[in-house]
Amino acid sequence: MDRRSLIKKGAVAAGALVAANSATKVSLVHASEKRFRWRMVTSWPPAFPILQTGVEEFAKRVGELTQGRLTIQVYAGGELVPPLGVFDAVSSGSVQCGHSAAYYWAGKCNAAQWFTSIPFGLDAQGMNAWFYDGNGLKLWEEVYSKFNLVPRPAGNTGVQMGGWFNKKIEKMSDFKGLKMRIPGIGGKVIAKAGGAVTLLPAGEIYTSLERGVIDATEWIGPFHDMRMGFYKVAKYYYGPGWHEPGSTLELIMNKKAYDELPPELKAALDTAAAELNVKMLSEFEAKNAMALQELKKDKRVQILRFPDNVLEGLRKLSEETIKEIAAKDPMSKKVNDDFQKFKKMLAPWNRLTEKAYYDFML
Amino acid sequence: MDRRSLIKKGAVAAGALVAANSATKVSLVHASEKRFRWRMVTSWPPAFPILQTGVEEFAKRVGELTQGRLTIQVYAGGELVPPLGVFDAVSSGSVQCGHSAAYYWAGKCNAAQWFTSIPFGLDAQGMNAWFYDGNGLKLWEEVYSKFNLVPRPAGNTGVQMGGWFNKKIEKMSDFKGLKMRIPGIGGKVIAKAGGAVTLLPAGEIYTSLERGVIDATEWIGPFHDMRMGFYKVAKYYYGPGWHEPGSTLELIMNKKAYDELPPELKAALDTAAAELNVKMLSEFEAKNAMALQELKKDKRVQILRFPDNVLEGLRKLSEETIKEIAAKDPMSKKVNDDFQKFKKMLAPWNRLTEKAYYDFML
Repeated sequence: MDRRSLIKKGAVAAGALVAANSATKVSLVHASEKRFRWRMVTSWPPAFPILQTGVEEFAKRVGELTQGRLTIQVYAGGELVPPLGVFDAVSSGSVQCGHSAAYYWAGKCNAAQWFTSIPFGLDAQGMNAWFYDGNGLKLWEEVYSKFNLVPRPAGNTGVQMGGWFNKKIEKMSDFKGLKMRIPGIGGKVIAKAGGAVTLLPAGEIYTSLERGVIDATEWIGPFHDMRMGFYKVAKYYYGPGWHEPGSTLELIMNKKAYDELPPELKAALDTAAAELNVKMLSEFEAKNAMALQELKKDKRVQILRFPDNVLEGLRKLSEETIKEIAAKDPMSKKVNDDFQKFKKMLAPWNRLTEKAYYDFML
Repeated sequence: MDRRSLIKKGAVAAGALVAANSATKVSLVHASEKRFRWRMVTSWPPAFPILQTGVEEFAKRVGELTQGRLTIQVYAGGELVPPLGVFDAVSSGSVQCGHSAAYYWAGKCNAAQWFTSIPFGLDAQGMNAWFYDGNGLKLWEEVYSKFNLVPRPAGNTGVQMGGWFNKKIEKMSDFKGLKMRIPGIGGKVIAKAGGAVTLLPAGEIYTSLERGVIDATEWIGPFHDMRMGFYKVAKYYYGPGWHEPGSTLELIMNKKAYDELPPELKAALDTAAAELNVKMLSEFEAKNAMALQELKKDKRVQILRFPDNVLEGLRKLSEETIKEIAAKDPMSKKVNDDFQKFKKMLAPWNRLTEKAYYDFML
């Protein structure tokens, strides 16, 4: 029943108010309070800290805000659909929403990659400015509408780390023959630099690094990386994560399911997504900082910064790679053009403020 | 009353859920759906962009989330109470909530200052990490509980600018005798440096700068500063805003009013505050970047970075000043100790990631 006819029916009933008995009353008043039970699938392992736990907080919040009129049952990766089955499951409507990262869908939707992070792209603060006050979210909605999806930024990892290495990286030629686990555009860039890029599932990385099957791997940041134990089997830990300077996580909702909701439930989802967006980044920042402090006490690993000539080389290859990817279809070009324009606008401001401040403070 | 107007009135009642004429009914069916009408006062001028407009979005969002069960009528500074009367009005319960900045209340509550920004303190991302994942919000709640206030971070200006100057600042001695409008701890620092600090109301700054009554003034960032017209009467615009590296705005709620609310309405306020927190910062970032781009086209003003020796000098004086302020009472000391510890923990992480990234990118 749409809102208009709901109000109309309510009006007639309210006109007959005096005659109403209490049973009628309940049904009248709560006519607008249809309950919705949503299922949500994610790409994260069960109880995976910050990511899966953050999503669970989100679901709880929506339940709280709506007094249970919209409940969201959360399924971790593999519980209902595989971790990378989130997009299809939500797109087809077999579940109503999901939490994941847009760049996982590059194979189905090339333009999606800009909505997570691209090498040497925007940091978290820049991504949010692009989404909320530039054209970022509008473009994302346009790109996803073909897949019956409504996206919202819903978390950010912050700047990630560059990865764990068993060979020192001092110049671009050090990537030649380097066996590295690195997915996405970053992987394409390392391949261009002469690296042998492999894509191992999470469970195999540690052993592969230990046995020399790979020389290097990227993961996320100190907090999650330490739980993987990489510091026991790698010599060097490099920053910054040039390939993911501020990866946005996504809430995706099936368009039909979202459109069916009354405005207050849509508002609950949108507002809770924004809350998750800011709080997840904060949690990443705090936990990564704490983990780095711990890691520094352990003398096994050297924590290093990529030298400038390496970052410069990676940037050139990244620019080439991004141009190639953007040329694949008109929508990707449109998204990339807008992204680059926004980034260019933001740069002088960041240089004068955040950078000048960091330069001096740190 | 004719049938038409009866239906119309009925419609309003049904739409409003609780406006039924039977008290019993209300208590039976709507026990959990009592309506609350809140008034909110702010420190910002009417329609003041980003700040006041952001607060209005927040109030709208709360109305939407609660289907009008909690409505917030927003009054700009001076409309109901003076701009700096917000704290007292909310504390006394004469209104239920307000939007302002904690450091305005330094005279009543010394420890409040850390919850907005202190010179050479944390940037926006750091402040959020401290609030949400450190002890920041807990300490803020503790400090404000004596005043019957419940605080929430609800917006951030990002790194501000250092101000407009008619004298070039090349060394610390250039502050000697400099007549500058700069409030708060920043003002204390400039006074320590030998400056003649004045506190002019907003409406008098432009003319004072034009007539040489003052040599310099700080304000916010390019977007708001340009609207004040300072670029017409000042030669130099300095960054970064060392005195306000990430000023948090506050939502304050009267504790009794907040405690009276059912959990879903509390959740609506908390979630909408977090949304405002992230969106206001994004808006500041985007609009400041755009305004700086405009300002650069205008050749009247030189946009400069404070030299390192000046920032170093200001930092020393800031540390002295903050120590003095923190020594005023045990609560201020407790807050400062925690703040400094958190900042120290965050620094190596920021150095390896955000700073390394900015260093190379910008």
